[in-house]
Amino acid sequence: MAKMKVGLLGFGVVGQGLWRLLEMNGQELAEHAGIQVEVQRILVNHVNKNRILPADSPLYTTQWEDVVYHEEIQTIVELMGGINPAYQCIKEALKSGKNVVTANKALLAQHGMELTKLAEEHHVQLRYEASVAGGIPVLQAIRESLSANVIDSIMGIVNGTTNYILTRMTQEGSTFQDALRAAQEQGYAEADPTADVEGFDAAHKLTLLASLGFKTEVSFNKVYREGIDKISPMDIEYATELGYVIKLLAIARSLNGKIEMRVHPTMIPSGHPLAAVNDAFNAVYVTGNAVGELMFYGKGAGALPTASAVMGDVINVASHQQLSNPPAYPLHYGYSGKEVQNMDETATAFYIRLLVKDIPGVLGKIATAFGRCGVSLSSVIQKGETDPVSLVFVTHITRELALRQAVKDILLMDELVEVASVIRVEELK
Amino acid sequence: MAKMKVGLLGFGVVGQGLWRLLEMNGQELAEHAGIQVEVQRILVNHVNKNRILPADSPLYTTQWEDVVYHEEIQTIVELMGGINPAYQCIKEALKSGKNVVTANKALLAQHGMELTKLAEEHHVQLRYEASVAGGIPVLQAIRESLSANVIDSIMGIVNGTTNYILTRMTQEGSTFQDALRAAQEQGYAEADPTADVEGFDAAHKLTLLASLGFKTEVSFNKVYREGIDKISPMDIEYATELGYVIKLLAIARSLNGKIEMRVHPTMIPSGHPLAAVNDAFNAVYVTGNAVGELMFYGKGAGALPTASAVMGDVINVASHQQLSNPPAYPLHYGYSGKEVQNMDETATAFYIRLLVKDIPGVLGKIATAFGRCGVSLSSVIQKGETDPVSLVFVTHITRELALRQAVKDILLMDELVEVASVIRVEELK
Repeated sequence: MAKMKVGLLGFGVVGQGLWRLLEMNGQELAEHAGIQVEVQRILVNHVNKNRILPADSPLYTTQWEDVVYHEEIQTIVELMGGINPAYQCIKEALKSGKNVVTANKALLAQHGMELTKLAEEHHVQLRYEASVAGGIPVLQAIRESLSANVIDSIMGIVNGTTNYILTRMTQEGSTFQDALRAAQEQGYAEADPTADVEGFDAAHKLTLLASLGFKTEVSFNKVYREGIDKISPMDIEYATELGYVIKLLAIARSLNGKIEMRVHPTMIPSGHPLAAVNDAFNAVYVTGNAVGELMFYGKGAGALPTASAVMGDVINVASHQQLSNPPAYPLHYGYSGKEVQNMDETATAFYIRLLVKDIPGVLGKIATAFGRCGVSLSSVIQKGETDPVSLVFVTHITRELALRQAVKDILLMDELVEVASVIRVEELK
Repeated sequence: MAKMKVGLLGFGVVGQGLWRLLEMNGQELAEHAGIQVEVQRILVNHVNKNRILPADSPLYTTQWEDVVYHEEIQTIVELMGGINPAYQCIKEALKSGKNVVTANKALLAQHGMELTKLAEEHHVQLRYEASVAGGIPVLQAIRESLSANVIDSIMGIVNGTTNYILTRMTQEGSTFQDALRAAQEQGYAEADPTADVEGFDAAHKLTLLASLGFKTEVSFNKVYREGIDKISPMDIEYATELGYVIKLLAIARSLNGKIEMRVHPTMIPSGHPLAAVNDAFNAVYVTGNAVGELMFYGKGAGALPTASAVMGDVINVASHQQLSNPPAYPLHYGYSGKEVQNMDETATAFYIRLLVKDIPGVLGKIATAFGRCGVSLSSVIQKGETDPVSLVFVTHITRELALRQAVKDILLMDELVEVASVIRVEELK
C-alpha cells in the first residue's frame, strides 16, 4: 500500500470537504486505488473556529512553513484562494520538491505559466482540476483524452452563481436584484457578488480553458468581460419569445490563427444542450476537429464536488510519482503565443432592444441605419401601443464594430428614448 | 521527439478515420504532445478494396502475424471487432510485450478481465476508451478523475442507432419500422439491426461501465436486456402527455452491496438532461457520492469521433511508457465479485397500457388487482369512447415481481383484450 502524505493550506469549505471525503471514502481508496492518503498538517489562520476538527487538533498550525517545509509531506494541497500568500507558498513548495494540487483559478490565471515551469524544473507535479468547473473533470479531458484533437471552441457555463440568478429570472420572472438576493440567501452568492456577477470568476476559468485548449499562453487581461447585472425581465421575456435562453457564457474560439476570449450574457437557442443547464450547475461544451461536440455537465462548486476533483488530483499525483519526469502537466508544453482577436473584429448575431417615441417612420429610419452600417436584420418585434414603444431587433451575424457604429448612429436620433439592451446571440446548432 | 510505432488490425471505417486523423492533426500532435505516431503495418482481409490507401500500399498485409510480431511496433491498435480472431491477436500482442488499444466492447465484455491480467503480467498497457460511447471520454473520467468517489449509479444512452430511432418516433410520430428504415438509410443502422435494436450493444457497454464504476468483475450474461422494437407511437404519445421521454437506457446501480444492471426502454422526465440527448448522440450520467451528478455528452460513434478516442489512448500509452509498471489500467485492480441483483427484486415505477372491453366496473377491477399485489398507482388515463378502450396506468416505485404478479392477474380477466405495453419509468430528479 502506497502512502501519500498531504499538507493542507487552508481549511475552509473545500478543505473540510476533503476531510469528510477521506472519512467517507478513505477505505475504498486504499482498497481500489492502493493509496492511503494521510493529512499531516493543516494551515489555518486561527485555530479557534468551529470546524470539523477540534481547536486543539495537533494537525493545526498557523505557520505555513510548518506545512510547506514538512519533511514527510509529499504533496501540498492549496485551498486558501487569493493570490497572496498562496503564490508564495506554492512557489516554495515546488522549489522544495513537493507536488502541488490547487483549486486556485485566480492565481493560475495570473501565474500559471511561471508555476508550471517551476514544477517542471523541479520534476514535480502541479495539478489543478478543481480550478475550473469544480467536480467536472473537464481539464483532464481536454489535456489527455482529447489530445488527438485540434480544439475549435470551448463554451462554458462556469459560474454557478450567475447561472442560478439567470435561472430564477427565467423560471420566475424575477428581477436581477431579487434573484441575486435569493442566491445570497441560498448561499450561492457572496455578500459582495462582484467577482461572480461581473464575470471575473468566469474570465479566470476561461483563461485556463483557453490556455489548455489552444495550447497558448494567454493573459487574463485580454478576456473581454461583461456581467449580467443589466439583464432585465423584459429581455428574458423577449428571449423566450424568440426561442432563446440567456446564459453567462465563457467563450473561447480559435479562428484563422487568432483566438477569441469573451465572457458575456449570451442568447442561445433553447433546444441547445447548454440551455438546459440550470440552477447552480455548470457545463463546458467543447468542439474538437475530430471528436465533434462534447459536453461535460455537473456541479461546479460545493464542498464535496470540489473535494472530489482535488482528491482525484492527489490520486493522480500518487499514481504518477514513479515517473522521473512527470507527464506533460505543464501549461506551456510546446506552447505558442497566439494572438487574441480584437473584440471589434469578433462576429456574432445581436439582440437589440430600443425604446422609441411612437412616431410614424421611426422603424424605417432605424432599419435604414442598421443597413447603412452593413448590419442585416433577421427579425423585428414591435408590440403594443405604448409610448415610448419597445422595438426589438435580432441581427444576422455581424462584426462587433459594425453593430457599434449602428448603435452610435441610432443614439443620435431624436426619436430614440433609450438603447435598453444589447445582448449577443450565438446561433449554436 | 518520441516516436510511437503503431500496427493496425483492421482498416474499416474507424481505421481509415485514424489515418485521416493523423493526416489532419499529426503535426499538431508532434508539436504539442511531443509524439510522432507512425503506422507501420495494417492488417486487412483483402487489399483490393476501395480505401483511403491504394491497394498496393506497402503497409498492407493479410497476415496478422506480420503486425502482431513486428519488431518495431510498440502498440497494436485493434479495430477488427468481433471476438475472433481479435481475441487471439490481442492475447498474442500482450504476450509479446506490445501495448494494445482497442475499441472492441463485445470482446472486452467477455474477456476483459483475462486480457487485463495478461497486460499486467507483461507490464504493458491495455486501453479501450473508444469501446464505450465513442468519442466521449467517460472511461478515463470514471477511472481517474472520479477515483475519489464511490459510484452510486451510471445511466447511459450508449447506443446511437436506437436513440436515433426513438428521436424520430418522438419528433415525427413515426412507427418503429419507419424510423428503423430511416436510420438504415442514414447509415445509423445496419442491415441486420439486432445488436443495436435488441440492446446487445448497450449491454456490452454497460458491462464495461459497471465493471469500472463499481470495481467488480461482472458478467455480460447477467445484464437484463430488453429492446425497443415493441415501442409504439401510442406509447410515445402517452409518454409526452405524462411529461416523459422514452430512451433506451443502460442502467447500473449499486444498492445494498449488490449491483443492478439492466438495459431497457425507459420513460424519464422530459426536463432531465438525458431527455435532451437526441439523434445519434450518446450521454452517460454518473452519480458519485462526492461529486454528485455528472453528465458526459457527445458523439458515440463515427469514424473521426471514435478515432479521436483511439488516438487519445495511443498518446496516453506513449506518455506512460516510461513506467515499469504502467498505471492502474486493469479492470480488476482490487476488484471484488459483487452480486448482481435479481431482476425480480429491482424497484422502478412502471407505465402499463391495457386495451380492455368498455364494460362498467372494469377500471375498478383492474385497480383492485394492482392494489392486491401491493402496486400503488400514481396516475391513470382513460380517454375516448372506443371499444376496446385504452387504459394507461403509471405506478409508484414497486418491486418488479409485484408488478409481474399484477399483470398476470390482469391477463386472466375476461374484460382484458391486450396488455399492450409495460415500460419502466425512472423518476430521475
